[in-house]
Amino acid sequence: MSASASNSSTISVQQYSAPLVAQLITHAAALGCQVSTHESGATIVDAGIQASGGLEAGRLIGEICMGGLGSVALRHVPQFARWPLSVVVTAKQPVIACLGSQYAGWALSHEKFFSLGSGPARAIAQREEVFKDIDYRDSGEQTVLVLETDKVPPVQVIEKVAKDTGLPANKLTFILTPTRSIAGTVQVTARVLEVALHKCHTLHFDLSAVVDGYGVAPVPAPSPDFITGMGRTNDAILFGGFVQLFVNTDDAAAEALTKQLPSSSSKDYGRPFAEVFKAVNMDFYQIDPMLFSPAKVSVTNLKSGRTFFAGKFNEDLLNQSFGG
Amino acid sequence: MSASASNSSTISVQQYSAPLVAQLITHAAALGCQVSTHESGATIVDAGIQASGGLEAGRLIGEICMGGLGSVALRHVPQFARWPLSVVVTAKQPVIACLGSQYAGWALSHEKFFSLGSGPARAIAQREEVFKDIDYRDSGEQTVLVLETDKVPPVQVIEKVAKDTGLPANKLTFILTPTRSIAGTVQVTARVLEVALHKCHTLHFDLSAVVDGYGVAPVPAPSPDFITGMGRTNDAILFGGFVQLFVNTDDAAAEALTKQLPSSSSKDYGRPFAEVFKAVNMDFYQIDPMLFSPAKVSVTNLKSGRTFFAGKFNEDLLNQSFGG
Amino acid sequence: MSASASNSSTISVQQYSAPLVAQLITHAAALGCQVSTHESGATIVDAGIQASGGLEAGRLIGEICMGGLGSVALRHVPQFARWPLSVVVTAKQPVIACLGSQYAGWALSHEKFFSLGSGPARAIAQREEVFKDIDYRDSGEQTVLVLETDKVPPVQVIEKVAKDTGLPANKLTFILTPTRSIAGTVQVTARVLEVALHKCHTLHFDLSAVVDGYGVAPVPAPSPDFITGMGRTNDAILFGGFVQLFVNTDDAAAEALTKQLPSSSSKDYGRPFAEVFKAVNMDFYQIDPMLFSPAKVSVTNLKSGRTFFAGKFNEDLLNQSFGG
Repeated sequence: MSASASNSSTISVQQYSAPLVAQLITHAAALGCQVSTHESGATIVDAGIQASGGLEAGRLIGEICMGGLGSVALRHVPQFARWPLSVVVTAKQPVIACLGSQYAGWALSHEKFFSLGSGPARAIAQREEVFKDIDYRDSGEQTVLVLETDKVPPVQVIEKVAKDTGLPANKLTFILTPTRSIAGTVQVTARVLEVALHKCHTLHFDLSAVVDGYGVAPVPAPSPDFITGMGRTNDAILFGGFVQLFVNTDDAAAEALTKQLPSSSSKDYGRPFAEVFKAVNMDFYQIDPMLFSPAKVSVTNLKSGRTFFAGKFNEDLLNQSFGG
Repeated sequence: MSASASNSSTISVQQYSAPLVAQLITHAAALGCQVSTHESGATIVDAGIQASGGLEAGRLIGEICMGGLGSVALRHVPQFARWPLSVVVTAKQPVIACLGSQYAGWALSHEKFFSLGSGPARAIAQREEVFKDIDYRDSGEQTVLVLETDKVPPVQVIEKVAKDTGLPANKLTFILTPTRSIAGTVQVTARVLEVALHKCHTLHFDLSAVVDGYGVAPVPAPSPDFITGMGRTNDAILFGGFVQLFVNTDDAAAEALTKQLPSSSSKDYGRPFAEVFKAVNMDFYQIDPMLFSPAKVSVTNLKSGRTFFAGKFNEDLLNQSFGG
Repeated sequence: MSASASNSSTISVQQYSAPLVAQLITHAAALGCQVSTHESGATIVDAGIQASGGLEAGRLIGEICMGGLGSVALRHVPQFARWPLSVVVTAKQPVIACLGSQYAGWALSHEKFFSLGSGPARAIAQREEVFKDIDYRDSGEQTVLVLETDKVPPVQVIEKVAKDTGLPANKLTFILTPTRSIAGTVQVTARVLEVALHKCHTLHFDLSAVVDGYGVAPVPAPSPDFITGMGRTNDAILFGGFVQLFVNTDDAAAEALTKQLPSSSSKDYGRPFAEVFKAVNMDFYQIDPMLFSPAKVSVTNLKSGRTFFAGKFNEDLLNQSFGG
């Protein structure tokens, strides 16, 4: 995976995201966010707890999650009658942007606090197995982590992030987006491309063969109920998400990937995510990992010029989940 | 409405729009605009009188109208067979952006000159009742007003704006967009979200409950005939406009708002706007205020997570109006 | 054509494109491009030969081709079931952007090397007849040329560009995009508006009457086979392209233009471009010039307010060409 290796010295998700974090803080009032200093010295951006945290905040936070390498755009896509508002996601270096930064893979907990961290700090801390597979590491004088939570993290969590990134707490920014906020809903739905790449990883598809891609998913109505809200952001991708990948491989591998990639290839496909989740007593690890993927995919093999298609949208289940 | 009150001290439509005005002036030639100095000392930007004033000028002027808090994007939306070109409008702080700045509510007249001013200068001048209801006030060392007109305003009108804003004429910029120009057509169609919020206001819906929203409408063909052109920009919204609002309220209030919000709830709905206008002898105040609203709406209540839907597009009347 | 004449002194495609070229070079690693110095001293940006050259690189290069006056956006347009990824193109001053800069009209060859140059350098070099017709000339201290090629140009070609632009080789940047790369495919598909304007030129329609326009076309899968790839980028426009033009003329002229503008008006319309090309033994000049145009067009006459419609999409031929 020499391409990624050489990239890791020149492409810094920390550096690319820094101007976006500065923008979020400077324009916090207009964006419906509140900035404060944590007792640890860390900067806290509330994007939906006390603050209102709207669409544009969510869009910008989505780009911060992608380490400044991605574009997250709010679009009107007349594809589902009731849910035209959509996020469209493109990325420079999708593997680095999505798996090296955006994937919410850093489990942070202390007593009752639990959250999965997303964003550039992950690439500096290197606490997850996935970094070995993609051979990407970042560094920096400051960094940012996005947490899908409705609580300010306790000192112990911030100290852990400081320790693992090797940075003092006052060089850390934590952006907090509850699932029930508009901003939280937008930034999680914006993981549509990341979900596809993560499934490639789960399927042991060679990630160095992924050259580019883009994704789109409808933005659900946020819900004040955590499980309903989380279910909707998953269903946005499972029943309404589309991803096209551009890969360098042989046609057999591209075709095999395409068939396995859509959510409908999973044995757990067929009902809203909240129901699946409740059926396993809220234990994520009992859910088929094949479920986490877009409804529909296209895979273009640059080596042959052939494109493979699989999956389908499911507007009925989308409406059932979103409450439409 | 404490949220708006606290916002008013930190969010300045004047400040947010200033870089966009600078951009319009710097790139005037490329944008098909002509900049000159009025005898009063004010800066005049002709965006469609002698100048050509195209799509991108209209888009940028739409964002200036929204006080730099909104994004106005030109999109290809394959929703109406003959009119795919559309404006998609999002806003940070939609109530301030749309009612505090964009709403063309400042009546300016002198002898034969009459125009309704839109843009940041309104929030400084505070001449309209609506500012009490939204509790928003702005200030600044300079400001800008957008006029839908095909005439350069006389000295008396400029002096009135100077007096009401407390700024000398040479600190004022007037952007002139005739209805018959592409730029004028785009900037007026870009009021789709504002029209929905203004109808909320007319319906006495609590505006402090509006957290976010977005809108889309097809861009009509401009017409050299004033009434036809004005009719088309209204019909773009009445028959082809869609808005989604995100509110914090109870479901009964959200549902009631949703039912009343679409244009089809008006007794004057059912024929092109130009015909309605002629039938009341061009007296706006005889038209049912319920008519001015998007064709179709969704209202998402963040407190319950429920979304309400009402209205419908009317492609036949859209084609009849646009000449398709 | 006095409007263009006066424009030529104030609107510089070289100046408008320079920040975009700087961006491409600064962010080359993230964009999947490789920058090197040619033995002649010229800067070479490889956007798909050894480098991967993805979607965002192609988008940015498309804007460089348009001399910084156009916007090339990657959009999800649910118009063709299998090919939603699309480029949407708008332009300030479309005639200057498209014909004065983007049109790949500068034939450069030396021994086995042959390529058609696109971009601002054309407007400085003035080697083509079209510059007389549009009355546009640019100048600058440096410039850029985009070549659809999979080979680094030989010294002789660079020296020719240096001579014709009057600039030393070390002030020249050459951006190389092979047809088989994603970046190459995107930047060529982004010519959809240019193709419509070039057909206006071929039809002797008065270009000074063109005020504005926009275009959209689906992005095909790149192909490693040159003729297949080139065929697909042509077919994207011929079978899937849409353009709306805004003109100042009389209705008879607007209607006549509309009827002749779509690709289906050509005697060579009806099969994938690669087949047409092979049938004339790869001799472009034997192909009916009427073929090179979008599938579907709208022409809005600003003088009358009427819009004319012609052409149709051909999803079957699009799928046949793109391999879907």
